Amino acid sequence: MSTDCLQELENALGRAAIVRDEDRAQYDVDWRGHLHGRSLAVVCPSRVEDVGETIRIAKRHQVSVVPQGGNTGLAGGATPDSTGGQLVLCTRRLNRIRGIDLLGNFITVDAGCILQNVQDAALSHDRLFPLSLAAQGSCTIGGNLATNAGGNAVLRYGNMRELCVGIEAVDAHGRLIGDLKCLRKNNTGYSLRDLLIGSEGTLGIITGAALRLFPRPFAHATALVKCANIEHALQLLGVLRAHCADFLSGVEWMSNGSLSNVSTQFPDTRMPPGFDESCLCLVELSGSTPPGLLDDILASALDQAIASGFAADAALASSLAERDAFWTLRERLPLAEARCRSLKHDVSLPAGNMGEFVAHLEGYLSSMTERCAWAGFGHLGDGNLHANVLIPDAMPNALCDRIDEFVYGEVLRLGGSISAEHGIGSRKNNLLHQALDVASLQAMQAVKNALDPHNLFNPGKLLFN
Amino acid sequence: MSTDCLQELENALGRAAIVRDEDRAQYDVDWRGHLHGRSLAVVCPSRVEDVGETIRIAKRHQVSVVPQGGNTGLAGGATPDSTGGQLVLCTRRLNRIRGIDLLGNFITVDAGCILQNVQDAALSHDRLFPLSLAAQGSCTIGGNLATNAGGNAVLRYGNMRELCVGIEAVDAHGRLIGDLKCLRKNNTGYSLRDLLIGSEGTLGIITGAALRLFPRPFAHATALVKCANIEHALQLLGVLRAHCADFLSGVEWMSNGSLSNVSTQFPDTRMPPGFDESCLCLVELSGSTPPGLLDDILASALDQAIASGFAADAALASSLAERDAFWTLRERLPLAEARCRSLKHDVSLPAGNMGEFVAHLEGYLSSMTERCAWAGFGHLGDGNLHANVLIPDAMPNALCDRIDEFVYGEVLRLGGSISAEHGIGSRKNNLLHQALDVASLQAMQAVKNALDPHNLFNPGKLLFN
Repeated sequence: MSTDCLQELENALGRAAIVRDEDRAQYDVDWRGHLHGRSLAVVCPSRVEDVGETIRIAKRHQVSVVPQGGNTGLAGGATPDSTGGQLVLCTRRLNRIRGIDLLGNFITVDAGCILQNVQDAALSHDRLFPLSLAAQGSCTIGGNLATNAGGNAVLRYGNMRELCVGIEAVDAHGRLIGDLKCLRKNNTGYSLRDLLIGSEGTLGIITGAALRLFPRPFAHATALVKCANIEHALQLLGVLRAHCADFLSGVEWMSNGSLSNVSTQFPDTRMPPGFDESCLCLVELSGSTPPGLLDDILASALDQAIASGFAADAALASSLAERDAFWTLRERLPLAEARCRSLKHDVSLPAGNMGEFVAHLEGYLSSMTERCAWAGFGHLGDGNLHANVLIPDAMPNALCDRIDEFVYGEVLRLGGSISAEHGIGSRKNNLLHQALDVASLQAMQAVKNALDPHNLFNPGKLLFN
Repeated sequence: MSTDCLQELENALGRAAIVRDEDRAQYDVDWRGHLHGRSLAVVCPSRVEDVGETIRIAKRHQVSVVPQGGNTGLAGGATPDSTGGQLVLCTRRLNRIRGIDLLGNFITVDAGCILQNVQDAALSHDRLFPLSLAAQGSCTIGGNLATNAGGNAVLRYGNMRELCVGIEAVDAHGRLIGDLKCLRKNNTGYSLRDLLIGSEGTLGIITGAALRLFPRPFAHATALVKCANIEHALQLLGVLRAHCADFLSGVEWMSNGSLSNVSTQFPDTRMPPGFDESCLCLVELSGSTPPGLLDDILASALDQAIASGFAADAALASSLAERDAFWTLRERLPLAEARCRSLKHDVSLPAGNMGEFVAHLEGYLSSMTERCAWAGFGHLGDGNLHANVLIPDAMPNALCDRIDEFVYGEVLRLGGSISAEHGIGSRKNNLLHQALDVASLQAMQAVKNALDPHNLFNPGKLLFN
């Protein structure tokens, strides 16, 4: 049965489009190496029509399909199960920039385009595509849409949902749905676009997208700010919002735990004098303004934050090299963490409850006999914490589960979200039942059944079936 | 049967919550007086629980429900059919501001809150709720969400979809779905919020919303700019984007036809000298900047637009009174139109095709023997044209239909949208079949059937059933 399916796929798409045997190993495991699946084969269509053909063939053979872009996901959404019966549909050969509308400020791309290539295409026309995240050199636009990716510039430009005006996708019958109209306002029926965004490949296969572009800001002001704790950092954010709102493009928070891990893992890391052993905020303004203006505005706001006691000290980047050094510090946080054993928790919280959450978690960790270290960081301006915990190599899984339970329990108790920007995938779908009420879950399940009646698309991800 | 239904509703919600007989006349007709329906009765719940109870009772009696907020819609979405068998569910008594989160910058409101009251509540805390449109003194947040309303500030702040982070709604079983979490990032399952936004009451009854707030900008720069035609206006927009992007909050376009109608209907209208008989753009920058800066930035950009030949002249508002006068001109466009017989067309177009669209429509109108006048205006920064046409009182409906057909045919041919910000309602659902492909329509219908299996919610609106 499955051999017939592969033969049909090979006949339809060509031999080169099907990856079998050992060659598919890289597709069968997530990039952190935590989740190991086993696919029937990997299909790599190079044309949108071939995605439709793949789905029609898969449907006929009752073989389910796991879409995969850059395979950089953190929630297991792109890894096949271990049955050997699922097809991985790799979109990486769908990688054309279809067009740029410079008058309207839109770019239309294939879903398999790598994020950085889209950023570069925009820059080559003096435009900004603002989505920016650690995996941008390998993650794809389709995956960014499927998880509603966030990253470093959401505060100013919004997450992937807000950057996308049109989606083209293949439905459960192998037909195209949606549209790629380059329009800022388009209200014609239910927003299939917004239904597909964040659906993690469970409702259809995204093949193309129309995305917004922005003027490229040519001025920046960047500072590293020392804050006593996350509550002070939130007050700092309030001062920045009041004084720099037109330009505020990033407020990244780094706990002292996350920073000392960077110093341990990257001994060449240099901090401004006196900035060790503290929480820091990386603050950035950007705009199309006369030289010096942003530095003046930021310096004045930081003076006020220091005078109010919300910031202990601040270092304004005085050169491009210094700005790069500040951002390198931020970028090294996940890289340093990847060299350790850690528990990742991508959560968001109401601003007013963040301090309580961090204090409770630190208290809980210090009460454990194992040496677990709080190493949180995150996009403070969006209320998004990566509430990560470094754990000993030998810690038993049951203890890991207890920390996870504590974190998600606190997040829900404090009105937060168990999934901010990484998705639900196969790692969090058991939590979805705690996070949502029965009626909302049933509504989601009804939508899933309506659009994917044969459960063809990424079963077992996001929802349970 | 329907008498039983009303009796049950009266028992459950109290006599005062049910409007019958002649008193319901204002609810049975749209505000323009074009669509006349006949409801069974009007239900006015004052508590969210009563909305659930209304739906449960309506479901038991197989009576469908037409939600209505301020009854200011332009597409007929809130008017009952003429059978006398539908309940109008008026949300206006659900009008509490539930809370404001000043640290996180969110406001949580009942769906029946009037837009202006929400704007005022934000202002009283020195915050901006940016949605701004002509009907703001009477339209409700629920209606704004149901139609994904746009208005004058979309260019900078986005439409209602982008301003909303959470929705609470009553489903087809009378249960609450969704959530009102005040979080910028929350990806837990499919976005029921985005499915409900723009669904015009056909998937559930929105009862509450969590909305984003912004710092209140205290500086403005406003100008009236004379452009030869819409293509020059679009080039002006490009110059403004390149030079004032951080502050650009409105670029409103007014055709000479729309402006001469204002002069006719409001003889006290004053224009800056030499600004008659031309297309105009109203341009506004806003921000939290030192005094004078925005004026300087705008003046410099306008100088460049004039030097490049995209603008013929520009008048910068030198006082608050002058700023108000410029905006009064803009606000009088729909008021002047309401005093005439007109055909409204709320459409959007790719920027590159707007000039062709306007030229073709003007050509078509001038070829008619009836004296029809092009009186378009719109939110140029969003590609949104109100491509309205003034028509003689005696013009036969068949001719009106021909103009509509021409307009929508051109819009679709040029890659535009037949509905930008007013919705589909009962006036455009026949057009939806031209605008969308069969697979997308079937996907929407499947979602409708899944979430509203008994066709309880606003049947005959948006989709056909």
